[in-house]
Amino acid sequence: MLTDADIANAHPLEPITAIARRAGLPADSISPYGDNKAKIEVTKIDWSRPDGKLVLVTGVSPTPAGEGKSTTLIGLTDALAALGENVLVSIREPSLGPVMGLKGGAAGGGYSQIVPMDDINLHFTGDFHAVSAANNTLAAMVDNHIQQGNELRIDPRQVTWQRCVDVNDRSLRRVVTGLGGPASGVPQETGFTITAASEIMAILGLATDLDDLTQRLGAITVGDSFDGRPITAAELGAAGALTALLKDAINPNLVQTLGGTPAFCHGGPFANIAHGCSTLLGTQVALKYGNLVLTEAGFGSDLGAEKFFDIKARYGGLDVAGAVVVTTIRSMKYHGGVPTDQLDAENVDALRKGIVNLERHVDNIRTFGVTPVVALNLFTSDAGAEREFLRQWADDAEVAMAEADVWAKGGDGAVELARLLLDNLSEGSHTLYDTADGVEAAITTIATEIYRAGKVELSWNAKNDLARIKENGWDTLPVCVSKTPYSFSDNPARLGAPEGHTLHVRKLIPRTGAGFIVALTGDVMTMPGLPKRPAAEGIEVDSAGRVTGLF
Amino acid sequence: MLTDADIANAHPLEPITAIARRAGLPADSISPYGDNKAKIEVTKIDWSRPDGKLVLVTGVSPTPAGEGKSTTLIGLTDALAALGENVLVSIREPSLGPVMGLKGGAAGGGYSQIVPMDDINLHFTGDFHAVSAANNTLAAMVDNHIQQGNELRIDPRQVTWQRCVDVNDRSLRRVVTGLGGPASGVPQETGFTITAASEIMAILGLATDLDDLTQRLGAITVGDSFDGRPITAAELGAAGALTALLKDAINPNLVQTLGGTPAFCHGGPFANIAHGCSTLLGTQVALKYGNLVLTEAGFGSDLGAEKFFDIKARYGGLDVAGAVVVTTIRSMKYHGGVPTDQLDAENVDALRKGIVNLERHVDNIRTFGVTPVVALNLFTSDAGAEREFLRQWADDAEVAMAEADVWAKGGDGAVELARLLLDNLSEGSHTLYDTADGVEAAITTIATEIYRAGKVELSWNAKNDLARIKENGWDTLPVCVSKTPYSFSDNPARLGAPEGHTLHVRKLIPRTGAGFIVALTGDVMTMPGLPKRPAAEGIEVDSAGRVTGLF
Repeated sequence: MLTDADIANAHPLEPITAIARRAGLPADSISPYGDNKAKIEVTKIDWSRPDGKLVLVTGVSPTPAGEGKSTTLIGLTDALAALGENVLVSIREPSLGPVMGLKGGAAGGGYSQIVPMDDINLHFTGDFHAVSAANNTLAAMVDNHIQQGNELRIDPRQVTWQRCVDVNDRSLRRVVTGLGGPASGVPQETGFTITAASEIMAILGLATDLDDLTQRLGAITVGDSFDGRPITAAELGAAGALTALLKDAINPNLVQTLGGTPAFCHGGPFANIAHGCSTLLGTQVALKYGNLVLTEAGFGSDLGAEKFFDIKARYGGLDVAGAVVVTTIRSMKYHGGVPTDQLDAENVDALRKGIVNLERHVDNIRTFGVTPVVALNLFTSDAGAEREFLRQWADDAEVAMAEADVWAKGGDGAVELARLLLDNLSEGSHTLYDTADGVEAAITTIATEIYRAGKVELSWNAKNDLARIKENGWDTLPVCVSKTPYSFSDNPARLGAPEGHTLHVRKLIPRTGAGFIVALTGDVMTMPGLPKRPAAEGIEVDSAGRVTGLF
Repeated sequence: MLTDADIANAHPLEPITAIARRAGLPADSISPYGDNKAKIEVTKIDWSRPDGKLVLVTGVSPTPAGEGKSTTLIGLTDALAALGENVLVSIREPSLGPVMGLKGGAAGGGYSQIVPMDDINLHFTGDFHAVSAANNTLAAMVDNHIQQGNELRIDPRQVTWQRCVDVNDRSLRRVVTGLGGPASGVPQETGFTITAASEIMAILGLATDLDDLTQRLGAITVGDSFDGRPITAAELGAAGALTALLKDAINPNLVQTLGGTPAFCHGGPFANIAHGCSTLLGTQVALKYGNLVLTEAGFGSDLGAEKFFDIKARYGGLDVAGAVVVTTIRSMKYHGGVPTDQLDAENVDALRKGIVNLERHVDNIRTFGVTPVVALNLFTSDAGAEREFLRQWADDAEVAMAEADVWAKGGDGAVELARLLLDNLSEGSHTLYDTADGVEAAITTIATEIYRAGKVELSWNAKNDLARIKENGWDTLPVCVSKTPYSFSDNPARLGAPEGHTLHVRKLIPRTGAGFIVALTGDVMTMPGLPKRPAAEGIEVDSAGRVTGLF
């Protein structure tokens, strides 16, 4: 069988300048990075154009079976283009660390990919590196301030700003820095995150222009003074330098789908510690030049989609015209209790049991004022009886649903889905809660209306955090819940559609630069490790520069 | 007075594709990064073309007065171009860390700069980030191997491979990693270097093609096993992945001088812990398309130039046709004992005393079979009597010397120097020592013939290192001496031209990937710190993306 890489490498790419022209982008906005990638300069865009319609692609609660959300998005895009729609894509960039760890890129699959996939999965246009450089320059400026007299009286024990690398490196989770004597800093216990978990990645994802970027970078809280006052990056004089380091990264990257559709691929904040969406600017530029723009958000409707509406769409004033909920028969069987190694076997009973998970996600999308369309992403193991059951379910539940076969067929496999989506676009999406009601109310609303929890419990720590948030005037920021994606509850083992459970909030972390409050409901891993056999071990480059084994 | 940034920003740049065409580079080798930068793909170069003539620009022992080596190189290049020469430049890339620390880029100055200077001094085409990613991926793979069963029996106490960042961050010099319990690695005392000090930067600087790059990356020693066997990156299966991370970084970057001359700016290994030259491939590509190529090496003839001949030229089979030794009247006065704050005052006696430093560098260049040309880089404080003294000295000593006024006049300020250089080109440069004689002999030859030391003393540690080098078959690698640049001796306070001194070798570090043995003769700082007022604090970006305060 052909791999994703085989398919991508065999595909003749159009020059990116031709793709950009086709999208209608101004010639002077196009800054090529090689033949097949470009940055689009946001200062050169015609912002007076009307906006196209925005479609959000989300999914059911993820399972080991895999749902193929990005793959469906890309195949659907190419189907819409084939139907004559002026459609553009706005999706996230992959993180390099996991590419070297577990096999699998983040640029779709099969005949539904964005290309050049090897470049996209390696350094791309350097955005992640720019975020790392900005993140680590700020860390050095914090510690240098402490070392050089500490005018701001920063408490070295209360520095919350961490360093980052775009590598899966578990040994950097907990470290002690500043050893080696007085010339080499003040000893501190700290840690590194992966770059995607840096607040600066979230900021890049939400900035509306360079001035807003500077303002948000300056508003980052790096830690506390000895008297408990939050210290910002602006006080350290870092906002301008960090902006300079991100002045190119703020410009969205343009690539193409295998069907030749222009695709913006920009930003990659984690969907647990951050909001998990591609950049607002990437989406906004796409909306200026596409009549229809497909974008996605991490995990299911409870995480990425909720944050899309309540954080990204709120800050960007985005109206969502449609939503696609991607599911598979295998996922629904998994939610119905079938173990991973038995997902190939026909099991309509399990499907009937597990479909509650899909129903919940469909309901959640309606909560935001958007009509959901279910995309059933087909696998070869799917049985006729199972597909028939789902068709019947959709009829009975009055849910718009279409099968899609995008991995094998690309856009040709999503024509019915594309037509169904076009028939289900509307206007007037909205956020879930009013930030004026405060952080605690926001958490409660998300927990009860989206997770269907019976109640919310704040730990002693979280209560202290909340008091501090109120003291500092941060209580009207939107909330970014960090919760397991595998369950609507905070217990990853509770599959299906649990309700009446208790959401345990352990800690509230103000991200004053990004502009949200992270509510931690469990352990959140911000630095992955490598597996026993890292994907890196299988990667080779031949003498002509062709990479093999990347996927 | 105009700053370097003012001059660079006011200059209208030619499109890089036009510059590349003018250089005669094949159209399909040009990979643009925006309008004014490009990578030149080494697999698309016509390697069958004859080589041009290579000129090495070096300097006297550096002083706080500043010599302007890069500035002179660039002005001289534009002067040669104005004389009708087909001339190209091959110089190093700046490191980002120091740009945020002390003011001052590394792309020349005044009317003798390479541009776009802001991009060159920030992320440029991402080469340094690629080196960091490769370096840190290898570090993660080492620690992951130890964590996941440790088949190779790597001794965690003997891991020598360090992580790196391109930030001046003193708090990372000495750290303890792997804390936080058994899921987060094995505790280790280690440290970070700045990216320019990574062995991978040195490897990128010496690799002749992708296969050679893979081979050198695989030959990196990451530490020892419990039974004292050196462990390589190849044994960890990392060579292919690291090559993939560097597959674009290996291609030289093309920019332009203010005079419009094509300039390769590629690679930036430290001149103390590594060999301090721009990449071999950048120089080799330039030699294929330029009749004359100007390149430079870090510090004076004792460090950068010696390493240029004995490491870079040896590995690349380069013949050096000419050499320029850059000096200033202020530097010579400093070597004659004048303190920094009195360098503006006329002082022919101090000049007479300090000129021994220049004489020694001139002699050293002759040792490699090359005729030196002295470039006297003028400053406004230079007195007529001082300039007259130097002219007389050059006549008496039969040294080719010309004044240059490149900061203020660009190429127009170096016409006489350019003519003099053209009159002094020759063939048949050579290395200083035969590697077959072993590491100890190489050190002795460098110490006695270049530094004019009376003898070499190896510490107890260095003797042990030497025994281990012999055991492992590394004794025929060339030597990269890490010595203070300020003196020919290992004592930075001994200015002028000391002789008969003892060179103390403290440690020998095998860089089996780069292919040299580092001989440490003093403390070597591989991670700088930020100053009390970092340059970063003065950097701003306006809403159109223009950076100010960078220089």
